[in-house]
Amino acid sequence: MVRQERALRTRRLILEAAASVFDEFGYEGATIGEVVARAGVTRGAVYFHFASKRDLAQGVVDEQFAQDGVPERACKLQEFVDTGMVIAHLMPRDPLLSAGARLSLGQDVFEDLGGGAIPGWIGRLEALLVAAGERGELLPHVVPADTAWLVTAAWAGVQIQSQRLTGRADLEQRVSSLFRHLMPSVAVPGVLGSLRMGPDRGAQVMAEVAAAREVKPVDEGVAAA
Amino acid sequence: MVRQERALRTRRLILEAAASVFDEFGYEGATIGEVVARAGVTRGAVYFHFASKRDLAQGVVDEQFAQDGVPERACKLQEFVDTGMVIAHLMPRDPLLSAGARLSLGQDVFEDLGGGAIPGWIGRLEALLVAAGERGELLPHVVPADTAWLVTAAWAGVQIQSQRLTGRADLEQRVSSLFRHLMPSVAVPGVLGSLRMGPDRGAQVMAEVAAAREVKPVDEGVAAA
Repeated sequence: MVRQERALRTRRLILEAAASVFDEFGYEGATIGEVVARAGVTRGAVYFHFASKRDLAQGVVDEQFAQDGVPERACKLQEFVDTGMVIAHLMPRDPLLSAGARLSLGQDVFEDLGGGAIPGWIGRLEALLVAAGERGELLPHVVPADTAWLVTAAWAGVQIQSQRLTGRADLEQRVSSLFRHLMPSVAVPGVLGSLRMGPDRGAQVMAEVAAAREVKPVDEGVAAA
Repeated sequence: MVRQERALRTRRLILEAAASVFDEFGYEGATIGEVVARAGVTRGAVYFHFASKRDLAQGVVDEQFAQDGVPERACKLQEFVDTGMVIAHLMPRDPLLSAGARLSLGQDVFEDLGGGAIPGWIGRLEALLVAAGERGELLPHVVPADTAWLVTAAWAGVQIQSQRLTGRADLEQRVSSLFRHLMPSVAVPGVLGSLRMGPDRGAQVMAEVAAAREVKPVDEGVAAA
């Protein structure tokens, strides 16, 4: 058990090092040697967890989907907005997300890697929109698959342009602007009015998640007493 | 005069060859030798027009703005939509536009090249939105600079995702979807209802431009008679 925990921690360390290398050099420019150096582990440890550079890159791309922990909401469109705002909040702070985006959208390695990540995001957003539709939150003309495709693409374009022009300093403000422009075509008026989609929404959700984590053990203790 | 025309034609030939090379290999992978081979001109001819590979790439990026010839409209928001739809129509057919997008958004050469193209597009769209505002076409909360930033970014994201997933086969359909999602937050209802933003809008506008070109000499002849 302890050994397994240590292996998971090493795997995570290697993924974070790999992310910072891919983020800096791109796929082609990255080397396993540089990952070894940054992770402070042996080459053998890297190859124990990942068979190849491609495998490492796939690990970084897959990690995107494990990163955020956006809480479930009764209002599925709020959860939809939260997903975009939380990633906008985390990406400038997390090389795993940042490298994942670069690898997913890069020209280099699309066929095997990015080809999976883009449909992964579209599918995740589509599922939220379908659930929103079942709850009567969507305007009647909305086609979940089309809107999910569009929001995935537009979000990625906003991320790239924000990175290019401000080093992602305005990413949360621009993603907030994206949702403020899009949601009036998606949400029924009653839902639209209550959606929180300001630039600080991502930070709010993450603070809420952190608070829930801290409170939990105490709650459990009280419940057990 | 004839000599100048020939020089312009050669310059254009070289730019088109350079575009196809940048489009295929990216900035780093492109070589002047390959451009010489594809243009079917001498190396001296290339260096007569462009001092370096960087100069060639800049020429391709600048050419984006000379490509489309979107006609002016009384309704500025229609001209705004037409701009996006025409480029979506032309890009799969024109390596100059396609390479321009790749160079503008590529990781390689951003500092000097793409850094100019993105603000160029934002500025062009912002000017159209300001003109639309003066004509009372905009909803009161619209900030032209913010909406121009967002549409430029979202358009680019749609282009990249369409290229990745379908080789740009669905680009016009997806850009049409982008405008259908965004314009209800931008246009006053009276204008919104009359905006043409279907997937075939780009082709329609280009057909109109071609027809006007064919008719013009006759018109001038009649006017002169």
